[in-house]
Amino acid sequence: MSKKKPADVVVVGSIGIDTIKTPWEKRESILGGSASFACAAASFFAKVGMVGVVGSDFPADYRALYKKFGLDLEGLQTMEGETFRWTGVYEKNMDNRRTICTELNVFASFMPVLPPSYLDAEFIFLANISPSLQLHVLSQAKKPRFVMADTMDLWINTARDDLLKVIGRVDLLTLNESEARHLTGKSSLVKASRVLLEMGPRYVIIKKGEHGSILFSHAGMFLMPAFPLEDVKDPTGAGDSFAGGFIGALSASGRITEHAIRRAMLYGSVVASFGVEDFSLDRLATLSRKQIQQRADLLREMMRLR
Amino acid sequence: MSKKKPADVVVVGSIGIDTIKTPWEKRESILGGSASFACAAASFFAKVGMVGVVGSDFPADYRALYKKFGLDLEGLQTMEGETFRWTGVYEKNMDNRRTICTELNVFASFMPVLPPSYLDAEFIFLANISPSLQLHVLSQAKKPRFVMADTMDLWINTARDDLLKVIGRVDLLTLNESEARHLTGKSSLVKASRVLLEMGPRYVIIKKGEHGSILFSHAGMFLMPAFPLEDVKDPTGAGDSFAGGFIGALSASGRITEHAIRRAMLYGSVVASFGVEDFSLDRLATLSRKQIQQRADLLREMMRLR
Repeated sequence: MSKKKPADVVVVGSIGIDTIKTPWEKRESILGGSASFACAAASFFAKVGMVGVVGSDFPADYRALYKKFGLDLEGLQTMEGETFRWTGVYEKNMDNRRTICTELNVFASFMPVLPPSYLDAEFIFLANISPSLQLHVLSQAKKPRFVMADTMDLWINTARDDLLKVIGRVDLLTLNESEARHLTGKSSLVKASRVLLEMGPRYVIIKKGEHGSILFSHAGMFLMPAFPLEDVKDPTGAGDSFAGGFIGALSASGRITEHAIRRAMLYGSVVASFGVEDFSLDRLATLSRKQIQQRADLLREMMRLR
Repeated sequence: MSKKKPADVVVVGSIGIDTIKTPWEKRESILGGSASFACAAASFFAKVGMVGVVGSDFPADYRALYKKFGLDLEGLQTMEGETFRWTGVYEKNMDNRRTICTELNVFASFMPVLPPSYLDAEFIFLANISPSLQLHVLSQAKKPRFVMADTMDLWINTARDDLLKVIGRVDLLTLNESEARHLTGKSSLVKASRVLLEMGPRYVIIKKGEHGSILFSHAGMFLMPAFPLEDVKDPTGAGDSFAGGFIGALSASGRITEHAIRRAMLYGSVVASFGVEDFSLDRLATLSRKQIQQRADLLREMMRLR
């Protein structure tokens, strides 16, 4: 019996069937969810173990797509019932998104379990799910070397205490600028980051969408721009792709240094920039490691002062 | 009779007495205008000749402040009547500004004239004034080596033909992102920049406020971040300070290469970041070349991938 290759990176998060309307186009019942984007993005750099739940209605095509990304699906539970569904609409400038409808379905009773081959993973990404589930995953991991967590406004409002426990136990917290302001009550991101670092994590990455992201640590800041795109077809999942690409690249580097983290942000930014060029995982599904490297070289050149 | 030092950089633009209300503070009758900010910012790097107009009511203190920045004021006309006045209000997030009142006063009949000591200046910044006045200045310069122009929505709406003439005659066009979209009809900045480059300039810099600026040329892009600040007291004039710091630093470098332009953007970004830390020219008035260099080194480090 051949021994299974253990996961380098474990990602827990949501898996959803999305309906998305942009000012130009509408797509129904497409694959989404924070774990879908993060796992696909990380898969370019590392062996990824997925932890999530789908319903008995989950299309075989979508499962096949996960397999195409080389994901380890042992941690993917299938429960009787319907898969989580989300409907969102983007307004004219694409930077304002409204949630029209959320149906938790099987997600309501989800309890994540790490299979044996995930237990020794050193890199763990707690993508956007409830903080109590994030904590439950964390309690199972045997030797996490680097844990990062994402969150959203909903948990800041409804599960603040658990969220603060998560933040106190991770190496890196990532969240978007409005969430950082909301969680800390500070409108200046520099001030907000100081409050967040005091909550425990060594690193905080504040995501600013098309304007890139900022890494904060006690050592200072790093300003990672987004790759400027001609067309953005669907920004859904950009933050998850960024985080997934980031932790995949960081795991591949094998080091957790300021330099390695900056470089991993470059790759996260690049993978996210490809992701938004099409709906769902469509662009990531045809993306090659070579295309990622080419754009990373280009973006690096666009940041170069000398 | 000692020969006067000729100007390295000539700046033409508006000079105004501003009343500004932010969510936290209101200031009345403070010194403003595109030429004020741009000249002050450029003065840290070069000998600057100012071209503009004030009324007979222009306070002696403000003229003394110009002198303190070492500006050559031979091109500053004083006309019978009142100085240009502008009143603006910033909304809660500081990124939306409403003009409450504009009184052109002496500006209505202004005709810029370059004094002899300005005629040989190699670097010219046509800051935000009407395109016909920008053209009038350009027609007087004897050996401009590098001309850059800024503009605003008003001229895109009311003087588009003259504006296109200006754009066709400059080396570098700078404008903010909403103006770039407005002028070109393209919502993507990458697409907008392509249209703008086709209008004539070799370089286009699109300003994105707190999110930095992007340099576009036929060679590609450069992404210059803004320095992340804890507090922004008054964003008025940030774009003008950026442009002034930029052309001053470029002139001081003596070269017009991609490298020199990128480096000048670093200095423009740094001077602008100081400028918004206080109202009017208050922070620039106490700023030292050493403080600029320290922040430039810090910002450079924040952009460094390796």
